[in-house]
Amino acid sequence: MERHLPPATVRPSRLHEAMRYSIFCGGKRIRPILCLAAAEAAGGSDGTAMLPAVALEFLHTYTLIHDDLPAMDNDDLRRGKPTSHKVYGEANAILAGDSLLTLAFELLAQAKESGRLALELAAAAGSRGVVGGQFEDLVSEGLQPDAAQVQFIHIHKTAKLIQAACRMGAIAAGAGGPAIDALGRYGLNVGLAFQVADDILNATSSPEALGKAVGSDAARGKMTYVALYGIERARREADKLVADAIAALQGLPGPVEPLAAIARFIVERKS
Amino acid sequence: MERHLPPATVRPSRLHEAMRYSIFCGGKRIRPILCLAAAEAAGGSDGTAMLPAVALEFLHTYTLIHDDLPAMDNDDLRRGKPTSHKVYGEANAILAGDSLLTLAFELLAQAKESGRLALELAAAAGSRGVVGGQFEDLVSEGLQPDAAQVQFIHIHKTAKLIQAACRMGAIAAGAGGPAIDALGRYGLNVGLAFQVADDILNATSSPEALGKAVGSDAARGKMTYVALYGIERARREADKLVADAIAALQGLPGPVEPLAAIARFIVERKS
Repeated sequence: MERHLPPATVRPSRLHEAMRYSIFCGGKRIRPILCLAAAEAAGGSDGTAMLPAVALEFLHTYTLIHDDLPAMDNDDLRRGKPTSHKVYGEANAILAGDSLLTLAFELLAQAKESGRLALELAAAAGSRGVVGGQFEDLVSEGLQPDAAQVQFIHIHKTAKLIQAACRMGAIAAGAGGPAIDALGRYGLNVGLAFQVADDILNATSSPEALGKAVGSDAARGKMTYVALYGIERARREADKLVADAIAALQGLPGPVEPLAAIARFIVERKS
Repeated sequence: MERHLPPATVRPSRLHEAMRYSIFCGGKRIRPILCLAAAEAAGGSDGTAMLPAVALEFLHTYTLIHDDLPAMDNDDLRRGKPTSHKVYGEANAILAGDSLLTLAFELLAQAKESGRLALELAAAAGSRGVVGGQFEDLVSEGLQPDAAQVQFIHIHKTAKLIQAACRMGAIAAGAGGPAIDALGRYGLNVGLAFQVADDILNATSSPEALGKAVGSDAARGKMTYVALYGIERARREADKLVADAIAALQGLPGPVEPLAAIARFIVERKS
């Protein structure tokens, strides 16, 4: 990722510094890891999916920067550190996010299968993906939890991009339609499990373990799986999603154990 | 453009409505027109550059939505109508901009030469292009006008994208390196002339003619060509840039008169 970011010595230095600050703030790198592991499960060689993997992390980081803005979730902490707008101001946080989004597509443009990869990423990231999910998340604050709406938000805000990460890994590996689709099913289930686990952590973890505010979903009246069904049923649902994800891995040509391990980690993680 | 935007009936409806509001707010469509005209000047047939042309207008519109935000230029009017955040609120304006930026790359991914086109657009739009120019524009407010800094802002905030529009038209038309470069030189000069003309209009026009606030550059201490050299020298500079632009058109295989006419229109326009 270092190599694909503009150096902080290039103008505008402070903008490039803001981009780097959010990228190197200690994320879990779930999306690039899934992309690389999906490429290997699809029979690709080590590193074939590096450009899409880096693009996915840049894109994900832009969504976090914009989501944290005062006009959106107004979060002060992310990954245990002050959010971009707290450090660089609101205008620069917006611009750093815009730049990372643009850079994600610049990286894909340099990959083999650039067109197909960009289509996958854009469909998962735009108004029919992450941005649409964030929109519905904001308008649902304080409303009575509703199963269909929680599902819409989770699929769009989180699961589609994780699904795209897995599909992009398979595409970069040169996989055929069935392998791409199988990895997409794995990704959709893992993505939903990831978001349900996030909802549980927000309700049960500590700020020290999580690196951000805890209980904020409930305080804001966020429409989460936990608000809808409670902790116990959310845990059972996450376990079921992980089992479905792992079941989708059967018959792939490459090693699938890393993907199965990631799926299990996602529901067992403490942060 | 209508066909390439998500219908307002698709969820999230209000987000798609916000995207449509800003696109159909009556812009001059300079970038798509230049892209299409450049494709014809490069010998391409009618409409070969339609996808990049639409992508350019979507991208440009996102930059306007974000530039107008309270954290940036805090503008209430654009093209004679209330700005996006005045109508839809700040969060939705940020998200509508993010969606249009993403959609621009989604369109390019469907074009022939998708990788090359996306590289051109991303380089002109990101932190080393429009976003970088907007960043320097904001940090320069209220500072003593400086020739190098005005040049940096004009090139990055405006001219690079117009240059990219012309290069992208040539690439979509299947042109060779010399034609792409000639149209790029035309575009860079036209882009600079466009921005100098903008600075002049901001200082001399009426809100009725311009569709947005007038005199706002001076009131905010914006670093413009007019602030640096005054109106008369700015007019001479714009004329010189237009002459240089037209000179770059010699030897192209297709009709160049439309591009020459656009260059002249750009400095003579009243809005």
